[in-house]
Amino acid sequence: MLGNFTYYNPTKLYFGGGSVASLRDELPKYGPNIVLVYGGGSIKTNGIYDQVAAILKDCGKNVAEISGVMPNPTLPKVLEGVEICRRHQADFLLAVGGGSVCDYTKAVAASVHCEEDPWQKYFVRFEEPACPVVPLGCVLTMVGTGSEMNAGSVITNPDTKEKVGKVFENEDVMPKFSILDPNYTLTLPRYQMVSGIYDIFNHICEQYFCGADDNTSDYLSEGLMRSVIHSSRIAVKNPQDYEARSNLMWTATWALNTLVECGKTGDWMVHMLGQAVGGVTNATHGMTLAAVSQAYYHHVLPYGLPKFKRFAEAVWGIDPTGKSDEEVALAGLDAMKAWMEEIGVVMHLTELGVDESMLDQIADLTFHMDGGYKALKRDEILAIFRESL
Amino acid sequence: MLGNFTYYNPTKLYFGGGSVASLRDELPKYGPNIVLVYGGGSIKTNGIYDQVAAILKDCGKNVAEISGVMPNPTLPKVLEGVEICRRHQADFLLAVGGGSVCDYTKAVAASVHCEEDPWQKYFVRFEEPACPVVPLGCVLTMVGTGSEMNAGSVITNPDTKEKVGKVFENEDVMPKFSILDPNYTLTLPRYQMVSGIYDIFNHICEQYFCGADDNTSDYLSEGLMRSVIHSSRIAVKNPQDYEARSNLMWTATWALNTLVECGKTGDWMVHMLGQAVGGVTNATHGMTLAAVSQAYYHHVLPYGLPKFKRFAEAVWGIDPTGKSDEEVALAGLDAMKAWMEEIGVVMHLTELGVDESMLDQIADLTFHMDGGYKALKRDEILAIFRESL
Repeated sequence: MLGNFTYYNPTKLYFGGGSVASLRDELPKYGPNIVLVYGGGSIKTNGIYDQVAAILKDCGKNVAEISGVMPNPTLPKVLEGVEICRRHQADFLLAVGGGSVCDYTKAVAASVHCEEDPWQKYFVRFEEPACPVVPLGCVLTMVGTGSEMNAGSVITNPDTKEKVGKVFENEDVMPKFSILDPNYTLTLPRYQMVSGIYDIFNHICEQYFCGADDNTSDYLSEGLMRSVIHSSRIAVKNPQDYEARSNLMWTATWALNTLVECGKTGDWMVHMLGQAVGGVTNATHGMTLAAVSQAYYHHVLPYGLPKFKRFAEAVWGIDPTGKSDEEVALAGLDAMKAWMEEIGVVMHLTELGVDESMLDQIADLTFHMDGGYKALKRDEILAIFRESL
Repeated sequence: MLGNFTYYNPTKLYFGGGSVASLRDELPKYGPNIVLVYGGGSIKTNGIYDQVAAILKDCGKNVAEISGVMPNPTLPKVLEGVEICRRHQADFLLAVGGGSVCDYTKAVAASVHCEEDPWQKYFVRFEEPACPVVPLGCVLTMVGTGSEMNAGSVITNPDTKEKVGKVFENEDVMPKFSILDPNYTLTLPRYQMVSGIYDIFNHICEQYFCGADDNTSDYLSEGLMRSVIHSSRIAVKNPQDYEARSNLMWTATWALNTLVECGKTGDWMVHMLGQAVGGVTNATHGMTLAAVSQAYYHHVLPYGLPKFKRFAEAVWGIDPTGKSDEEVALAGLDAMKAWMEEIGVVMHLTELGVDESMLDQIADLTFHMDGGYKALKRDEILAIFRESL
């Protein structure tokens, strides 16, 4: 841990079957006007909406709703939500859904009392709120983004096709509490489950593949990666396995709540590549990451060889005997690829509706990061997209 | 993660060289009357006292002091501190020291406004505070206990020789912030450094060697254990290695801030054995744990064989080829023993001033726990102490 840092994560987590009952302890701490935020309505068919609504009623809350939050939440939807919250004089926002709903709720919470254009302020100039943030909580129904215990929010501007992630530094944007009941994830379609699994794994990779010092965060990352690999293999065989789904849920939270980035820079280039794809295609987030990962990691491997070798041995159990460092490192990426195919992620951009003609636009929309082993130039980004087709 | 649990850890951590400057951001949040708490005075010779005092002065604070907090802080010392805080009308307690000073400060903080006997209330009946707790912060100078980010406090009653740990459930007892500057640990005598290293490792073991389910906490524990082993080997060769000491400092915090016990019962029997030894001998905490560990783990191994086998492979890299499960598990404990000898912990109770004649008394003072693989009977406890002589 050669870098200095501050760690502060005051989100309270209620984990396990039936933990939605903890809403009864948390909601009375806030004022009466609640805005319930959710997505496409699956919570109305699987019973979660009814459970939450019953508790809100028992707590005597005055409830307005924002429904129809889409998988890649858009700026116009944020502005619509802000208006609803203002009219309702919202005291508290309750997100019920996955990472998109939670991300969206944070963007709204920081914008309700904001007198400037929130897109310009937060997602272009990356500033912090100067206004009070409406407190929020989360009932998680989908696993992967870690949004339930961080201050991150990814919003898409459909006019410019920019999909931009803002990590707020103001902890008021973090959920006051999050409710993690693994049972709520059991009805998720397989495609979303698998996408979430790869999203978790890649979050860890983004924080692991950077830096040269020996860092406790890397050891924690290796533990989390081994846990994801183990549980994902059980979950894809039997999605109803509570234990595997509960481990995936808990791992997702810790993969992206700043812990394993402590003392590190972070890479996040796979997310930049994937988010550019998502901005143009509206494809599922985790699958966009999966489709570009192998080409990206092979591209940067020569610049971070010792860490890719360590990854191969510590995460994938590659025996280094009789192999060169590069052979060990490549065997690690091969093992990772075999696991990706085993759990069934998307391995090619063409499966997400991308063709050669779109690559220039996607490359133009890609943010350039410099925390990883190699700051990519535009031609390298284009080459990685082409290899990922 | 088959068990339900709540995770909530709102302590803010400032990590790295020079992080004491963060006191300037934190102290203005509290009232003017500060009680500075520290130990035997080493902070006056190594310059830490002067740094903290200068910041307190700059912040315009009205400071009283509790000095001379001993390594195993006693009940009379707690009562003395309570009187000082009452006379000073303390708004905030600032602990500057290691785990003992931090544990002590929590006990005082919970007792200043307590109208009952704090020993009976907290350490005999294990109740929670009914009174306001005085807020506290910590500047850490010694690594091992994790007290800087939890609600635990271990206090010794010299009349009864009981050394009792209370884990408060009220987060007001947790430090509001802790300052972790690895440089502050570089002047620590080797004996204390090594004792702290084993304390960290054993904290992880206590939470790892229990439970039968597959749990993300166990993967995180394996990562932390590998980090401790790696950094300890560097630190004992060169105690001035900032990177190794910084990793040990960070690992210690995460080894005992409830994260790796999530969804688990915890064992804590090595701590009960060690604390009984400490209550009678006043020996250094980590060394009491080290002296009894090998005998204890060999005793319970048959009842938790799959986990001891996993420990051998995942933490110590034991190759299971051609070995029975028991042989793999025993090879893991052998590797652990070799590491303990390499870093130089105490391997025998006789080195801590214990002789055969004291074992009956120590066994009588040992709390019985039932969260591990085997609930020990008194004759088993006595046998473990005898094997550890």
